Amino acid sequence: MPDAKLLEVFESPGDEPYVIEHVADEFTSLCPVTGHPDFGTVTVRYQPRPRREGGTCVELKSLKLYYQSFRSEGVFYEAVTNLIRDDLVRLMRPAWLQVRTDWRGRGGIRSVIRADHGDVPAEHRGK
Amino acid sequence: MPDAKLLEVFESPGDEPYVIEHVADEFTSLCPVTGHPDFGTVTVRYQPRPRREGGTCVELKSLKLYYQSFRSEGVFYEAVTNLIRDDLVRLMRPAWLQVRTDWRGRGGIRSVIRADHGDVPAEHRGK
Amino acid sequence: MPDAKLLEVFESPGDEPYVIEHVADEFTSLCPVTGHPDFGTVTVRYQPRPRREGGTCVELKSLKLYYQSFRSEGVFYEAVTNLIRDDLVRLMRPAWLQVRTDWRGRGGIRSVIRADHGDVPAEHRGK
Amino acid sequence: MPDAKLLEVFESPGDEPYVIEHVADEFTSLCPVTGHPDFGTVTVRYQPRPRREGGTCVELKSLKLYYQSFRSEGVFYEAVTNLIRDDLVRLMRPAWLQVRTDWRGRGGIRSVIRADHGDVPAEHRGK
Amino acid sequence: MPDAKLLEVFESPGDEPYVIEHVADEFTSLCPVTGHPDFGTVTVRYQPRPRREGGTCVELKSLKLYYQSFRSEGVFYEAVTNLIRDDLVRLMRPAWLQVRTDWRGRGGIRSVIRADHGDVPAEHRGK
Amino acid sequence: MPDAKLLEVFESPGDEPYVIEHVADEFTSLCPVTGHPDFGTVTVRYQPRPRREGGTCVELKSLKLYYQSFRSEGVFYEAVTNLIRDDLVRLMRPAWLQVRTDWRGRGGIRSVIRADHGDVPAEHRGK
Amino acid sequence: MPDAKLLEVFESPGDEPYVIEHVADEFTSLCPVTGHPDFGTVTVRYQPRPRREGGTCVELKSLKLYYQSFRSEGVFYEAVTNLIRDDLVRLMRPAWLQVRTDWRGRGGIRSVIRADHGDVPAEHRGK
Amino acid sequence: MPDAKLLEVFESPGDEPYVIEHVADEFTSLCPVTGHPDFGTVTVRYQPRPRREGGTCVELKSLKLYYQSFRSEGVFYEAVTNLIRDDLVRLMRPAWLQVRTDWRGRGGIRSVIRADHGDVPAEHRGK
Amino acid sequence: MPDAKLLEVFESPGDEPYVIEHVADEFTSLCPVTGHPDFGTVTVRYQPRPRREGGTCVELKSLKLYYQSFRSEGVFYEAVTNLIRDDLVRLMRPAWLQVRTDWRGRGGIRSVIRADHGDVPAEHRGK
Amino acid sequence: MPDAKLLEVFESPGDEPYVIEHVADEFTSLCPVTGHPDFGTVTVRYQPRPRREGGTCVELKSLKLYYQSFRSEGVFYEAVTNLIRDDLVRLMRPAWLQVRTDWRGRGGIRSVIRADHGDVPAEHRGK
Repeated sequence: MPDAKLLEVFESPGDEPYVIEHVADEFTSLCPVTGHPDFGTVTVRYQPRPRREGGTCVELKSLKLYYQSFRSEGVFYEAVTNLIRDDLVRLMRPAWLQVRTDWRGRGGIRSVIRADHGDVPAEHRGK
Repeated sequence: MPDAKLLEVFESPGDEPYVIEHVADEFTSLCPVTGHPDFGTVTVRYQPRPRREGGTCVELKSLKLYYQSFRSEGVFYEAVTNLIRDDLVRLMRPAWLQVRTDWRGRGGIRSVIRADHGDVPAEHRGK
Repeated sequence: MPDAKLLEVFESPGDEPYVIEHVADEFTSLCPVTGHPDFGTVTVRYQPRPRREGGTCVELKSLKLYYQSFRSEGVFYEAVTNLIRDDLVRLMRPAWLQVRTDWRGRGGIRSVIRADHGDVPAEHRGK
Repeated sequence: MPDAKLLEVFESPGDEPYVIEHVADEFTSLCPVTGHPDFGTVTVRYQPRPRREGGTCVELKSLKLYYQSFRSEGVFYEAVTNLIRDDLVRLMRPAWLQVRTDWRGRGGIRSVIRADHGDVPAEHRGK
Repeated sequence: MPDAKLLEVFESPGDEPYVIEHVADEFTSLCPVTGHPDFGTVTVRYQPRPRREGGTCVELKSLKLYYQSFRSEGVFYEAVTNLIRDDLVRLMRPAWLQVRTDWRGRGGIRSVIRADHGDVPAEHRGK
Repeated sequence: MPDAKLLEVFESPGDEPYVIEHVADEFTSLCPVTGHPDFGTVTVRYQPRPRREGGTCVELKSLKLYYQSFRSEGVFYEAVTNLIRDDLVRLMRPAWLQVRTDWRGRGGIRSVIRADHGDVPAEHRGK
Repeated sequence: MPDAKLLEVFESPGDEPYVIEHVADEFTSLCPVTGHPDFGTVTVRYQPRPRREGGTCVELKSLKLYYQSFRSEGVFYEAVTNLIRDDLVRLMRPAWLQVRTDWRGRGGIRSVIRADHGDVPAEHRGK
Repeated sequence: MPDAKLLEVFESPGDEPYVIEHVADEFTSLCPVTGHPDFGTVTVRYQPRPRREGGTCVELKSLKLYYQSFRSEGVFYEAVTNLIRDDLVRLMRPAWLQVRTDWRGRGGIRSVIRADHGDVPAEHRGK
Repeated sequence: MPDAKLLEVFESPGDEPYVIEHVADEFTSLCPVTGHPDFGTVTVRYQPRPRREGGTCVELKSLKLYYQSFRSEGVFYEAVTNLIRDDLVRLMRPAWLQVRTDWRGRGGIRSVIRADHGDVPAEHRGK
Repeated sequence: MPDAKLLEVFESPGDEPYVIEHVADEFTSLCPVTGHPDFGTVTVRYQPRPRREGGTCVELKSLKLYYQSFRSEGVFYEAVTNLIRDDLVRLMRPAWLQVRTDWRGRGGIRSVIRADHGDVPAEHRGK
């Protein structure tokens, strides 16, 4: 079951703005309608708050375990995308954050879902 | 026969804006002039209304069945594109929606039809 | 002989704006100077007027036959491009229309001719 | 242990603005959580201050040795990126500077971290 | 329903050996288990018997119509492949003949079926 | 748990030799050492016995379900490959059969396992 | 009308064996069934007899005019291929000769026809 | 220090011959002459002895740790390659085994070392 | 005018067999029928006789000047190819020699001419 | 001046046969005719004699310095290739050895020179 408690953070190592991007090629969950497995790529991009304001970064191994917690869950693409965005926003309260999920074809249809939080800079928008 | 009643929705899982894209490579219908089969790719991209305003998403398997309902229908490319846009807009009343159909060559001519609804953001226009 | 009477239309299936693009890879005519065959690709892109204003679309098979009517005609690239634009504009009176012809090399020179009609939107200009 | 004292500079050879980019494909450090090796590409791009204002450039062999000093260090991707940016900014006080680190997959997740300093021109932003 | 009576032949235009290959990208039939559409490419390669021995070639438009007759038929990939081979062998009694079908993914599985008749030359085997 | 009883067959539709290939891109199981998920592609290629000798083909949907039964199983790559070969050989007793598994990197190591049964023709060996 | 009298030769410039290959991308003829234009690539490869035995080569401009004489002719792919082979063999009586025609799709089917004359060396066979 | 005792095996899961290939992209050791890091890809391919004869397979995580034990070792490419071959042959006594190491450029020179053990089948030789 | 006297040689630097290949992308001559320029690539491959038997190599700058001497010459592709082979064979009397000329399209036809001298080894034939 | 005394060896680390390949992309020498710089890639491939027979390997840094000693030397491609082969054969007396030099264009002509020593196995010949 998707479990946000698996997520861990560490203190952001800097005060100046910087941008972090994690691309996970091996995401899998179950279709809530048919029960068959779905396979996708999850991309997260965000700017942590400055360290002096308590900014944090998600720890990579904990992110992997969090993604693995979707493995036996029946959940829509749209919900996966919103859930990941909301869990990560709640966890880190970043300056801004983007989630993009790319799903391999099911029934001949490939899908991409994009969800943003906060004021994403122009150079990252719609990517 | 194209049948919008096949389409089903589920409640959109979030209130913040996000964008959904479904690409169907295996669309087929019949040419209304010659009766020969046409083959194309249908791309739909839209932003659902927020959940708190009753926003919904089209369910993927029902979308596949809806597309399959064109299989024995004689219908122009232009009408396919307008019909899909109108059916989906009526179904979900999304913030905005785009349909693009790409047709494999017939008589040495390849075609692309694009139809929009509402205020499509600049980064998605003309794609 | 190029024959605009071969062109047929059908009523545009919608009132909201949409854009149609037809790419014909197998266009051939004759060089008016040497009599040798020319080979090219003809791309037409246009937005029909709304249905309620009598908007129409060119029927694809009739477009193919119209293109084939150039097969034995000695005609300059520039004239082909202008002729197609003018015939299609006269036929459909679209909101706007573009014609682009790409010619395979003759004497080591490849050519592209672009002709517009009406107010082509920024995202389609110069393509 | 990452050692900024390994870094050496030479006087920038000009007064007019110019831009320098160094791409190191063979960066390696250790994961602070698992102790396993990480592998990445480090890209540094910067504009030195003018010579007449004491502008300097980092010497390339010293940069290589500095990168090698991370080889046995357990350090997060984010910290590597901030550390390199901060060490180089302190060393050269450039007009502006960017660091981008691209990490090969660990646990099926590939990461990219981008950290800027100063007023990076639009054409280099988000690259 | 697959209908071999749609197939027509014409007299082979020569007595010396030659080889014919037809690749059809737009084959579609139905899955006999789920009823959902299948999409594939059918490749036929054969050497007609010499004209003086009554050798014939399959006419291309009739081959297209024959393929279209599978459109509403529930039939396994393996049966499609064997059926096409057997129908064409019965029709033309060629010196040799190959059929290869390539199927787009269904349930995440892509398939290729190859069936030969007669003594296929080494340079065409396993292609 | 891998479950060969999920596999179903249908009677092979022909007596002449032909070759079937199924490529499944979305195979996933668990690492028996770490419990983390593994992801791979499974390719099966075989020649059924002739119909008159009771030859059968594995049904595609049942193959998909059989593959899905590995989803929660901790099993080595080598065992997956041998198990699939042995289950399919026992099921169909084909003239010959090949299994190839390609695994996405784990710990920076990508793996390929190949297992054959019977007399694989030269043009398919080592592929 | 295809007219072999357009073909001209010149004396082969040497006595030692050599091989000539001409690839014509802009061949066009008419379909004898529908009257619609066909477009293809014609490849001819041959070894002329030695000069001292009266060996000749086909002159390139005359070959182009010969190909252009098919422009208004309704003729099957197979007949085009055999006709070109037979006309060129009669013209030059080469040591060996190959003709390959590649046809752009008609009705969703692409075709390749290969016809040989004489003893084609292994390194050119099936190409 | 390279440490063969890190290597672990498990019983080979079958008696019929099969072939295992592991490609490690992230190998690193030190140059014994300059002390600078070397980076390479190590490919191992082998056929285990049958299970009934005590055949074993190297366990993947132990192989990763074994490779990591070269990280601080000054050792020639040639010695790395021979050492890995000899350690693995001693560990598993396989039917045959190949090692190939590909080294990223040092001083502008890229290197590949190949070492075999036993009777490698023709389809794998020189790969 | 093609002028073999421009060609110069130097003594082959060795007695053991070795193979030399020169690829000239910028060859140009005139069509003897139309007077228009032809453009092509000339590839020469040969094995010189051993030094102790008076083996020589063609000097590269002289080869360039020799090629340039064709610039204003009206000459058939076939004659260019035979002439280069014969001039180089006469100049160096190599163990064996190949000439291949690749011509950019003229009138929509691309050509390749291959001429050999002596006993070309299997690994270089038909290339 | 090319200086074979720069070359150093170390004892081959094994008795079983293995194959070493070094590819140097940054070779440069001078044209003996024009004095202009030549740039090329030098590939050396060899099998050392067994250690117990005194087999040796060329040390990589010394090979780099040896290559650098050609930098100010006017020397033909052919002589470079023979010289490297002869110097390395004299140095190591390997079981067999290949040298291949690829030269970037000079005067529009690219060249490749291949020189072998001893009995090169079939899978490496002509590469």
